[in-house]
Amino acid sequence: MILKDLKQITVIGLGLLGSSASLAVLRSFPKIKVSGYTHRVATRRKARQLSVATEIFDDMALSVSNSDIVILATPIRTFEGIFEEIAPALAKGCIVTDVGSTKAPVHRWAAKRLPKTVHYVGSHPIAGSEKRGVEFARDDLFYRAACIITTTKNTNHSAVRTLKNFWSELGCTVTLMSPQKHDKIFADISHLPHVAATALINASDKETMKFAGRGFIDTSRIASGPANIWTDVLMTNTTNIDRGIGRIIRELTKLQKAIKGKNEKQIQKLLEQARAKRAALIRDKINKKELI
Amino acid sequence: MILKDLKQITVIGLGLLGSSASLAVLRSFPKIKVSGYTHRVATRRKARQLSVATEIFDDMALSVSNSDIVILATPIRTFEGIFEEIAPALAKGCIVTDVGSTKAPVHRWAAKRLPKTVHYVGSHPIAGSEKRGVEFARDDLFYRAACIITTTKNTNHSAVRTLKNFWSELGCTVTLMSPQKHDKIFADISHLPHVAATALINASDKETMKFAGRGFIDTSRIASGPANIWTDVLMTNTTNIDRGIGRIIRELTKLQKAIKGKNEKQIQKLLEQARAKRAALIRDKINKKELI
Repeated sequence: MILKDLKQITVIGLGLLGSSASLAVLRSFPKIKVSGYTHRVATRRKARQLSVATEIFDDMALSVSNSDIVILATPIRTFEGIFEEIAPALAKGCIVTDVGSTKAPVHRWAAKRLPKTVHYVGSHPIAGSEKRGVEFARDDLFYRAACIITTTKNTNHSAVRTLKNFWSELGCTVTLMSPQKHDKIFADISHLPHVAATALINASDKETMKFAGRGFIDTSRIASGPANIWTDVLMTNTTNIDRGIGRIIRELTKLQKAIKGKNEKQIQKLLEQARAKRAALIRDKINKKELI
Repeated sequence: MILKDLKQITVIGLGLLGSSASLAVLRSFPKIKVSGYTHRVATRRKARQLSVATEIFDDMALSVSNSDIVILATPIRTFEGIFEEIAPALAKGCIVTDVGSTKAPVHRWAAKRLPKTVHYVGSHPIAGSEKRGVEFARDDLFYRAACIITTTKNTNHSAVRTLKNFWSELGCTVTLMSPQKHDKIFADISHLPHVAATALINASDKETMKFAGRGFIDTSRIASGPANIWTDVLMTNTTNIDRGIGRIIRELTKLQKAIKGKNEKQIQKLLEQARAKRAALIRDKINKKELI
């Protein structure tokens, strides 16, 4: 299927990501119909008021029928049940994807629950905000965002091509990789910082934190992310995160040993190593114009 | 001594903090003479070109003679040597202070190296920037910054009062505490985040980091601080930091255990605990108008 033949897409889950995806599609493809579904009545009402989709359905199976692309934008661990529920209603050749932050289990659930007549491809657009909910939806949320598309040896090539063009059209820079590679990378750069920020806050005393300055506030910022969504992420990427925490603990122990032993050379070495690695990271981001 | 009687102050060390303090004094007290000293010829030249002080001296002892307040703004572990060097040149009743991020050892060095005729009081203005050097000096760097003044049972009360008014006049909100309490608090809210950010970066793979987004970049930002200054900080507050790293490792281990065991309730509990603690912190900062 090529992009200009797309007639209808469905977004399931109308939080910030789902409703922003819907608005971005309406902006980029003026002729496409976007069907939206969310299980909460109040959110459906708001979504209708804000016209975030062409039509908001009260029934999930109805919302996907006749769609060319179905995007799941609910918490990760709802996906398996949703696959099961929508399976009978999906049109032949439909592309099913999601915007979840872990990918390996989703590929497994799709293989198990979706009919062979549809194509599952994983998506992870790296976009978001500390704001949540349909009322903060923005049609430019994906502009200049990276989007990882995950595929296995069984993934339909034509579906991948369509989905790649689709996310590019919404403004994303698309990279393809396996779900395993994706989950390892995102354990390191997203899930582990979340765990580290959480540990830092939990290790801190309430009275002491009153003296916190910009450094502490920035270092701990992501610990304010929604606990339910992050529980989902941590529960679905356990092996990679477990290993990553082990690596951080080893690095902390190295620093602790150097500090306790007043080993100036070693302290300086570890600080300089981190500084140089981060400088390289920022240089790379600036070169690729990825720092906003 | 009352503020309006101040005639001369000296700033030793003309990096960002020292030269900003000098500019802030020139702005707040137009009649005061500010003497500046820095050991690097090139920095002295720049400081003269930028007129960051009334006079820039080539000789440290000369720069402090006749001063009412002397502020050390060099790396912490240079303080003991500087105290020794300036001791013979200090006027009777002179207040000696510093802007270092650890305070207990500085009080010890002062007691050992400074004559009984002068008054040492610790200062820690919580101001700074990722920019370094005299060329980034700003006369508003201390505006709305917190400043901790540290005192022991031997500290001269009148000197504390003068210094408190002095930093307030530069725009700071001043809090008094013991150097021990200061060092414990700042281990937790400043030195430990630095250690955690350093460990996070050192535990990350260079290729993987290329996919880093805003979360990783913010969480690791402070790891880009100058290694020599941070080595000084870590070397002078070892016991508190050692204990703090222990606490973070325990929190990480708790999370690791919950994640490895797929203990959803415990994961959610730990994430919610961090989220609630950070929300309280941010509310407190907003109430006190300390978030800029």
